[in-house]
Amino acid sequence: MELVSISMREPTFGHATTPSLHLKGRPKSASLTLKSSHISQPIASGFKSMDDYVSRKPEITRENLMVEEFLNDGLVYQCHFLVRSYESGPDNKMTMFFVINQLQESKLNHFISCGLVKTGLGKTGFGTTHEMTKRDLIWVVHKLQVVVDQFPSWNDVVELRTWICRHGKNSYRRNWIARDKKSGKVLIRAICSYVLMNKRTRKLSKFCEELEEEMNPFFLDSHPILEEDNIVSQKLHLHQHDCTYASLVTRLSDLDMNQHINNASYINFVLEGTPRSVLENYQLSRITIKYLKECSVDQQLQSLSLPLENDVVNVTPLIKDKDIKLHHSILSDGIELVRAKTVWTPKFG
Amino acid sequence: MELVSISMREPTFGHATTPSLHLKGRPKSASLTLKSSHISQPIASGFKSMDDYVSRKPEITRENLMVEEFLNDGLVYQCHFLVRSYESGPDNKMTMFFVINQLQESKLNHFISCGLVKTGLGKTGFGTTHEMTKRDLIWVVHKLQVVVDQFPSWNDVVELRTWICRHGKNSYRRNWIARDKKSGKVLIRAICSYVLMNKRTRKLSKFCEELEEEMNPFFLDSHPILEEDNIVSQKLHLHQHDCTYASLVTRLSDLDMNQHINNASYINFVLEGTPRSVLENYQLSRITIKYLKECSVDQQLQSLSLPLENDVVNVTPLIKDKDIKLHHSILSDGIELVRAKTVWTPKFG
Repeated sequence: MELVSISMREPTFGHATTPSLHLKGRPKSASLTLKSSHISQPIASGFKSMDDYVSRKPEITRENLMVEEFLNDGLVYQCHFLVRSYESGPDNKMTMFFVINQLQESKLNHFISCGLVKTGLGKTGFGTTHEMTKRDLIWVVHKLQVVVDQFPSWNDVVELRTWICRHGKNSYRRNWIARDKKSGKVLIRAICSYVLMNKRTRKLSKFCEELEEEMNPFFLDSHPILEEDNIVSQKLHLHQHDCTYASLVTRLSDLDMNQHINNASYINFVLEGTPRSVLENYQLSRITIKYLKECSVDQQLQSLSLPLENDVVNVTPLIKDKDIKLHHSILSDGIELVRAKTVWTPKFG
Repeated sequence: MELVSISMREPTFGHATTPSLHLKGRPKSASLTLKSSHISQPIASGFKSMDDYVSRKPEITRENLMVEEFLNDGLVYQCHFLVRSYESGPDNKMTMFFVINQLQESKLNHFISCGLVKTGLGKTGFGTTHEMTKRDLIWVVHKLQVVVDQFPSWNDVVELRTWICRHGKNSYRRNWIARDKKSGKVLIRAICSYVLMNKRTRKLSKFCEELEEEMNPFFLDSHPILEEDNIVSQKLHLHQHDCTYASLVTRLSDLDMNQHINNASYINFVLEGTPRSVLENYQLSRITIKYLKECSVDQQLQSLSLPLENDVVNVTPLIKDKDIKLHHSILSDGIELVRAKTVWTPKFG
């Protein structure tokens, strides 16, 4: 399919100003098809030049586009997001990769909006507080658990609530509940534990007293919203019986603002190593992922997976009316970077 | 860095209802640090249970979260988006991949909001009109040109305007202008030409009379906002002198809702084949990309690039204070899938 080049009429170079526009025709139905009361002055009565830059909405801000709120004495952060088409996979549902990215996004915005971190940007790392910056400390994701009752679709409005709890002595746990805005139905629940790491020595660190004081006002004493899921204490090996694997090389586009492989990218690596028969006939409904080692760009990885039964490694045939559990390891030079467990439910139809 | 597992207190399994929350402490500074007037009732005066699902914002809709409007007699669609952290690269700027995805997103929402397509979803393909569906026709991107004066950063509010023009006999051109909402400064301009393809035969098709009638009310007769950029009429070859290349395999995560490799993904493939010295010292400011052939998952690709000077292939040393032009080909089994040209400006500092 060689697409022919079509010459362009009236080629004039447009500079950083808006070109003047000339109406070709009046839309027949555009004004009738606008459903929202928020579209003010949708159809102007005559020609309006776009040269004059006039905002018709007095307040279009970051906060406005997310509709941020604090609930429960300011300890629960609530925001909203729209699922974008490019965040949806071939089944038209938001992919796990973008779900995890969106959870991470709300985490950062929560910290910014409650004033705990200034911007979350730059060399200080994501969501780094004042006391952490002073001590060269960053947050490291230790274990993430996501349970999906239903993935939202493109253009769905999702209400996301998140809050943090103390979790042991040197860790905190973040909790998320995502709901469909229209129905109020819970779509996704997730928990994640974070630990401190010194960004120079790359060693784990304890919570110091000053950091405790800084964060304490923001901790909420809530019950865990998910039972902690334990991952099989076994590393998978290449050429292990019934183990499938895919090789891949980390790309530049897998890097995040921190110059590290984005935590969510590991989900894609796990999926690459999942048997295609599972991907085609089942839907990912749960993932538990434990981050063991960091990795960087241009690194050759092997993504291994093995069917599980009752948390015992077993050679189960893939039966179509039952959930499937898979155990995953991502290796690089034989070293395990990530260990994960996924649960898959049969697709309908 | 082996992260130790930390046991969780009070593990209770959370069902699809919200757990009750118990306050641990009152935030010292949360109420003071809220800047937006949009955060209504940020700090409730006492404990509020999250069990009762009450929306405090009466209208949180898709349209509201984008702030959609029609300008110029309904022919120009305007929406807004927030740059998300995961759409930003290591330089904290929105990546070209996500810029292109966002352009595509606004294109679909424009068609939906003006009533030209019903949902843009499902088996009918992206942005397929009623008359196209009847004839098994889909839109195919022919050539995309993006000029970036400045990439927006995470949490920037971007105002995006888009409209369509006739472009020759069997093609239409889409135009975009993205501005920083705060300053009104133009950030990005882009044009893209689309042609019709029969989704069964995969052959290009002409505009039929019914489709002309259907689309005509939505065409705006505007000057092109960018001068059409011609790509070198030369395919690159592996082992060509001064040509650098990277091999890659297309992943499942490169697929879009149409089960095809996302148009924006080719940008990442182009970047993989760009010399690292250019990626490190220069910023991508322009891309012109011509889509020649389709490709699918698990396909082995070679991404080739060669420095250009005045559109003549030349062995130019990379001089740090000058723009660099690169010529790109993406090949699969020697067949060219995409040909592109990029312009890179030196990074400051």
